[in-house]
Amino acid sequence: MLVKDSITLRTKGDTDIIDITNQVKTKVSASGISDGALCLFAAGSTAAVTTIEAERGVINDLKKAIERIAPKDIHYEHDMAWGDGNGHAHVRAAIIGPSLSIPISKGSPLLGTWQQVVLIDFDNRPRKRRVVLHITGEK
Amino acid sequence: MLVKDSITLRTKGDTDIIDITNQVKTKVSASGISDGALCLFAAGSTAAVTTIEAERGVINDLKKAIERIAPKDIHYEHDMAWGDGNGHAHVRAAIIGPSLSIPISKGSPLLGTWQQVVLIDFDNRPRKRRVVLHITGEK
Amino acid sequence: MLVKDSITLRTKGDTDIIDITNQVKTKVSASGISDGALCLFAAGSTAAVTTIEAERGVINDLKKAIERIAPKDIHYEHDMAWGDGNGHAHVRAAIIGPSLSIPISKGSPLLGTWQQVVLIDFDNRPRKRRVVLHITGEK
Repeated sequence: MLVKDSITLRTKGDTDIIDITNQVKTKVSASGISDGALCLFAAGSTAAVTTIEAERGVINDLKKAIERIAPKDIHYEHDMAWGDGNGHAHVRAAIIGPSLSIPISKGSPLLGTWQQVVLIDFDNRPRKRRVVLHITGEK
Repeated sequence: MLVKDSITLRTKGDTDIIDITNQVKTKVSASGISDGALCLFAAGSTAAVTTIEAERGVINDLKKAIERIAPKDIHYEHDMAWGDGNGHAHVRAAIIGPSLSIPISKGSPLLGTWQQVVLIDFDNRPRKRRVVLHITGEK
Repeated sequence: MLVKDSITLRTKGDTDIIDITNQVKTKVSASGISDGALCLFAAGSTAAVTTIEAERGVINDLKKAIERIAPKDIHYEHDMAWGDGNGHAHVRAAIIGPSLSIPISKGSPLLGTWQQVVLIDFDNRPRKRRVVLHITGEK
């Protein structure tokens, strides 16, 4: 069976890294699916999802690594064409990626002990974001 | 139910970033599956898939970021062993990754408004590429 | 139908890149599922999965690229707070990502000819690791 759901949240933008593990666990539990897989997807071209230990130090460390990969203050062709100043956000999101596929067992996502699911909003302004969850499996 | 399909395309290589959104939408629609999930996979060790706003400026910006991560003109051990000069392509593909998991609702992939699916061919020559689509869900 | 399985392995840590393709193929074959999709997931916040040509030269090239993205010997806030010295490992794992979604056809994962599945253990010490496989599809 399939259960479709989504999480909507407000972000601050500017590589805002938000722990959504509790919401994901709640949605998986509410689906009634005991065993299967979760397709988790960040709808939007300046957001991404990944897993990390969602501890303030590591979150800042990840932000610095992303700044090394796609610095905010270099020239982006996108910004010349569109003038919205978020070229770096598009590049960052494409590198981290919009989707995760997470196994579900006994009604829970099979994350490691210190492994949290995070949405990253790379855009240069606060946004309302939608993370889509399609849960497939057996009751 | 499961529908297996694939997209075959010719690329120019050299970090050729190709928007395949229309083909993906056509395949999902043709599958007859209304609600489920799409497993999208780039078969090959020098190609990858991700999402981005497939606009010429951002595409060039992404190419430059990838060049910073794995520059073409540094030494690669792979090239010493194999002599095919595409060590950078293997490294780039492994970092971006070969797969996406995309939710499907009402017969369409749930992409954001400016979010397109792209195949990236990192190889150093034109290639014929196969992107595999396995669509699971309900009619 | 759904088959749940996992691969347990011992790693050396320190960006240990381990080819698990044969184990993955064996598990998929043993599942009895002919056609479907494999959700492959590295449980743990300092490990990741991707695909690459698992040849010694390219593996070393990938290690060097990862060292450029998140060098081991710079300051990490995580290490200040927790003192376990693996801040770089967390950042690296979040960038590469914990999951793959791989299509299965005729009882095999649809990998390219030179495309292998690898677990990467970024932690700064040997670990026992669990890679979870949830295989969905039809017999």
